[in-house]
Amino acid sequence: MALPTKVKLVEVSPRDGLQNEPHFIPTETKIALIDKLADTGLSVIEATSFVSPKWVPQLADHAEVFREIKKRPGVRYSVLVPNLQGLENAMTVGVKDIAVFGAASETFSQKNIHATRATSLLRFAEIIQRAKQNNIRVRGYVSCVLGCPYEGEVPVQSVVDMASQLFALGCDEISLGDTIGVGTPGKAVAMVRAVAAQVPMENLAVHFHDTYGQALANIYATLEQGIAVVDCSVGGLGGCPYAPGAAGNVATETVLYMLNGLGIETGVDLEKLMEVKSYINKIIK
Amino acid sequence: MALPTKVKLVEVSPRDGLQNEPHFIPTETKIALIDKLADTGLSVIEATSFVSPKWVPQLADHAEVFREIKKRPGVRYSVLVPNLQGLENAMTVGVKDIAVFGAASETFSQKNIHATRATSLLRFAEIIQRAKQNNIRVRGYVSCVLGCPYEGEVPVQSVVDMASQLFALGCDEISLGDTIGVGTPGKAVAMVRAVAAQVPMENLAVHFHDTYGQALANIYATLEQGIAVVDCSVGGLGGCPYAPGAAGNVATETVLYMLNGLGIETGVDLEKLMEVKSYINKIIK
Repeated sequence: MALPTKVKLVEVSPRDGLQNEPHFIPTETKIALIDKLADTGLSVIEATSFVSPKWVPQLADHAEVFREIKKRPGVRYSVLVPNLQGLENAMTVGVKDIAVFGAASETFSQKNIHATRATSLLRFAEIIQRAKQNNIRVRGYVSCVLGCPYEGEVPVQSVVDMASQLFALGCDEISLGDTIGVGTPGKAVAMVRAVAAQVPMENLAVHFHDTYGQALANIYATLEQGIAVVDCSVGGLGGCPYAPGAAGNVATETVLYMLNGLGIETGVDLEKLMEVKSYINKIIK
Repeated sequence: MALPTKVKLVEVSPRDGLQNEPHFIPTETKIALIDKLADTGLSVIEATSFVSPKWVPQLADHAEVFREIKKRPGVRYSVLVPNLQGLENAMTVGVKDIAVFGAASETFSQKNIHATRATSLLRFAEIIQRAKQNNIRVRGYVSCVLGCPYEGEVPVQSVVDMASQLFALGCDEISLGDTIGVGTPGKAVAMVRAVAAQVPMENLAVHFHDTYGQALANIYATLEQGIAVVDCSVGGLGGCPYAPGAAGNVATETVLYMLNGLGIETGVDLEKLMEVKSYINKIIK
């Protein structure tokens, strides 16, 4: 199958990468990280999460971070919102791109966002409606698409259901997340194909964790299926709290190295990205 | 393209993994490593190198290692031989599988094995002839198939030339090595296709280093082309001395995890392999 000629990288390090860091990262460091990332040519950066500081103290400075980042023209800065209150807070600082976070696994949904999948969809419906009224773009995450830390195997149909319902509610993009990194290329391909039968391929993104070193092979295999949006995190920032010692998100530089080698356009400068990696590696661990 | 139903893993850790370790690994540790690897179900283990201790002091105990390993039935224990003398020494301890080491890059050949490619082929011809007279199986390595630390890009034709000449000289298997790990899937596929036009696919193996995290994606892409022999090293042992700080060989457990997920048979037990990884990780760094 033909690979895409262009791929959009969605940089998630400022949110998914930092949220589990045990020590508070200074607000100015977060702002500097986002601004440096924007300078590499990345077109989408998930900047923070408008979640209660009670749940994610690391991102308690979300409003200040969003206000202070440079807003480089051509770059979309998205934020995670867990509920309507989060969306309202995000709108007060001018957010134009949000993301909601659902799960394919029932148990993970209850443990992670404290709602059944059905309840979460009601909540997302409200958020998405309000966002659309304000011309805000919405991304829907589906986590645990290839396995759940509590349930083990996750039926493909559960992924298809959650993805297609999020899409029907008005999400512009659905990111399919292998939250615990257990997927391998054959299963990733089967899952993407099943979802793409319900949601157009151009509205799908993949989000792989590198827990068992499978992320890049999974990405390559799903690019062959027509996937053209890939989530990644500079330096691989972001461990999964459910798999101690495991690697986190797939590293942006590793994905970019492959895409460059494949002649796939991203608009991102690898050398500048390596500088951002050095910058943040000096601060974290 | 259809993936193979079976893949042969060639475990190179005792030779390629250990040869650059700065501290001498005790002989009994090497023997224990090889015996433990054989217990996992691996069918080919590259045990050591019959090279002069002057060049590779780490493997100066090659004869003792080979003599003392258990020789589990069904497992092939191969050794690297740089010259006829090495072969004669190997035969005195009953070696039945050898490997010769050539390069696609002229400069790498001269720096690494101190011979031009043309001279190396004359040397290999003698070795292979003598080996064949003694019913010894020969593997031919071609290094630098996707890039050279001295020359940069390596023309695919140089790889095809070296591989097809080694095959014509009587090598039973040709291992195509991305020695510095710079390859990406598209280039790996193009290279494998070009070689497979001259050497039957079933006689080819791939050998990827994970310097830039590309190894598993490259392996997946070449499996799709029909490659069914993959070199790997437990725990990713074996750095490339030309890329300081870089990752080494692709880790056997990472490859096996993917193959298991793809439903491809290897005969290797992942749990036992993880025990070998723990064993050797306690000894090396």
